[in-house]
Amino acid sequence: MKSVKVGLLGLGTVGQGVATILARNGDEIARRAGCDIVIKSALVRNLGKAEALGFDGIAVTQDGKAVVTDPDIDIVVEMMGGDEPALSLVLSAIEHGKHVVTANKALIAVHGNQIFSAAADKGVVVAFEPAVAGGIPVIKAVREGLAANRIAWLAGIINGTGNFILTEMTQKGRDFADVLAEAQALGYAEADPTFDVEGIDAAHKLTILASIAFGIPLQFDAVYTEGISKVTRDDVAFAEELGYRIKHLGVAKMRDDGVELRVHPTLIPASRLIANVNGVMNAVLVQGDAVGPTMYYGPGAGSEPTGSSVVADIVDIVRTLSAAPGHRVPNLAFQSDSLSSHPALAPDAFESSYYLRLTAIDQPGVLADITRVMGELDISIEAIVQKEPVGDSVEVPVIMLTRQVREGAVNSAIAQIEKLASVKGEVTRIRMETLG
Amino acid sequence: MKSVKVGLLGLGTVGQGVATILARNGDEIARRAGCDIVIKSALVRNLGKAEALGFDGIAVTQDGKAVVTDPDIDIVVEMMGGDEPALSLVLSAIEHGKHVVTANKALIAVHGNQIFSAAADKGVVVAFEPAVAGGIPVIKAVREGLAANRIAWLAGIINGTGNFILTEMTQKGRDFADVLAEAQALGYAEADPTFDVEGIDAAHKLTILASIAFGIPLQFDAVYTEGISKVTRDDVAFAEELGYRIKHLGVAKMRDDGVELRVHPTLIPASRLIANVNGVMNAVLVQGDAVGPTMYYGPGAGSEPTGSSVVADIVDIVRTLSAAPGHRVPNLAFQSDSLSSHPALAPDAFESSYYLRLTAIDQPGVLADITRVMGELDISIEAIVQKEPVGDSVEVPVIMLTRQVREGAVNSAIAQIEKLASVKGEVTRIRMETLG
Repeated sequence: MKSVKVGLLGLGTVGQGVATILARNGDEIARRAGCDIVIKSALVRNLGKAEALGFDGIAVTQDGKAVVTDPDIDIVVEMMGGDEPALSLVLSAIEHGKHVVTANKALIAVHGNQIFSAAADKGVVVAFEPAVAGGIPVIKAVREGLAANRIAWLAGIINGTGNFILTEMTQKGRDFADVLAEAQALGYAEADPTFDVEGIDAAHKLTILASIAFGIPLQFDAVYTEGISKVTRDDVAFAEELGYRIKHLGVAKMRDDGVELRVHPTLIPASRLIANVNGVMNAVLVQGDAVGPTMYYGPGAGSEPTGSSVVADIVDIVRTLSAAPGHRVPNLAFQSDSLSSHPALAPDAFESSYYLRLTAIDQPGVLADITRVMGELDISIEAIVQKEPVGDSVEVPVIMLTRQVREGAVNSAIAQIEKLASVKGEVTRIRMETLG
Repeated sequence: MKSVKVGLLGLGTVGQGVATILARNGDEIARRAGCDIVIKSALVRNLGKAEALGFDGIAVTQDGKAVVTDPDIDIVVEMMGGDEPALSLVLSAIEHGKHVVTANKALIAVHGNQIFSAAADKGVVVAFEPAVAGGIPVIKAVREGLAANRIAWLAGIINGTGNFILTEMTQKGRDFADVLAEAQALGYAEADPTFDVEGIDAAHKLTILASIAFGIPLQFDAVYTEGISKVTRDDVAFAEELGYRIKHLGVAKMRDDGVELRVHPTLIPASRLIANVNGVMNAVLVQGDAVGPTMYYGPGAGSEPTGSSVVADIVDIVRTLSAAPGHRVPNLAFQSDSLSSHPALAPDAFESSYYLRLTAIDQPGVLADITRVMGELDISIEAIVQKEPVGDSVEVPVIMLTRQVREGAVNSAIAQIEKLASVKGEVTRIRMETLG
């Protein structure tokens, strides 16, 4: 049987997952791929630690250049994360005619256009299934499985840390900070959780999903990004009372006048299947014009789940080795000369429903003041609820759900409502999607 | 731009979906595929009706042979259903060097081994995504996306009619016969509903899924098949009280001593995501050793959903046209010379938990009699519930949930319990899976 030689850039969580899978399932994988997949060498930070891992036959090195220029190596797998030296090494690998698999969502979201262009020049494949939603083959599903469709929109729970935190807040009535501390202790969240809880990780993944769904270039800078750190236990509870659940979603919508690219906490009807995706699991719901709704669910991170996607990409590359480059699956689903310049819309142009929560003085006329503002801006209200005051307080929470409207109008309404004498402090605004 | 010519065998529900999608989304699809996909001709039963449909530029004919031998046609799409003349026409298309896409699950499940062998001889592709779970790209996900994994088991809601009926029974407390009549009126069920409600359609799909998951030949005859026609409103309600939902599942499990291939009503914990897949929707849950659980959800039938999968397969074929046949994705996921002869297990060897319901005389000692039988056969009981008698009746329903056990032991227990003087009539047995 033929064999294909692989070089790893990184032997951390994902790299160890790849090595473990190939060691344990090598026979099973060769039965599918029709050839053996052999890891020849790996770039590591610490030679001693790598040796302790005991992966037989993998030569470890601290010289990344040696891996990406090794004439023996057919495929380079990049799992270093971040910009540099990952970008330089990937470009160098391409320059030396290697196919590349990367698990690095930031690299693809920010530098993908440059990388794919270099790969096209050299006729090599750059695959990135592990960069989005870990072990779920969602890149393949959208790029190939839904090739017949105009995608109308997609919405994904694509950050496991955020979903774990919101699930705990929902199911146990806990506070954000409390759950975050637990997530850090469990290893679900980093010591610096910014990437996860402020939505940057999700924005990287949404950038990639939107591009392959709509045939637009990667444009990370155009994604509106809002994290979950301001979601309160009260908002979670009020949403639940109204039949909604708060999930941190990446949402991409195709409209005639542009695309909406946004990451934010979102109220969704509790009865939707995706509202019941809990804990660290991920799911991506895609609405195609021919197929209707399809959803892809599974673990969005982790050593072997992400390793599973790395190996699947390697097998795909093995299969394309004899195909003419023009016949391969295009990186971004659409032929590179067919990408559209459909503009990304500014947040004020977003259309959504909204959950608004504010604190009002418990006196007659308050709701009239608020609803007058909404009416003047042509914002239809689906529901408005004034809660009971707690104890002797003269302040009460007021919750409003709007119908679909332009975000600019809602922002104007919020600015006016915050100026009302009967309203205290800021208005909390959370977007709402029916996903129907 | 190049174009690829397609011939359709059938212009019914799915055929019209394919034609509609290519007419509406042709530009979008060409942006992905890098070439135009043109339907040249279609085999129809009724020339007049076909003309009334008004698909411009599709030549209709009543001569299937003319379609499959047309030197202009690159890809033949078979959507006739059933054995003949579908089988002969597909074999003839292959013989004439055409690639084939088929939506015919019975054809692949029963004749697939023969068809794939003929295709290998001629170096053509036979694709069948539309044959399983309609618009969900689950064949692609399992065959390619999970290529790194040993699949431990899969469980699917793969018949929309059956899921619609069970959902109505669960949500509205209705009877099977009543809901079936409605499903027939709505067009969800055929006038002769046997294929759907007796599990044959699901068994065809399970045959295909099991083969691509485990690398075993297609073996429809080895699938244990039980429908939903005997599920009662009472069983649905009792299951719900115990925290379970009844779904009609296709289950394939890999064991050291063989594979379990079975289609039957199944109690699953109501909290599982797949327990909340309702109405005519389908979902397939797959447990891989590296990735863990992943699930694929969407519409399992219908004109454009199934047409979506047909067109995706056509685009895939367009992409493989320049690849050496040895480098293509193998039909059954594994290289054809690497299929294993792992045996299919007989039902008595299945291992599962069980829900048992029986009618007993409401007198002391009944539960002792029953539990003695279970104990003698080493069957652990997880729960046993004796319901209140209704009115003056001396008979009461008794519900038992067992722990995991061999089915042969449960069948012996049922035979002995049915002979007890204190037990009336037959014992209802429904399998139970935690899918955990």
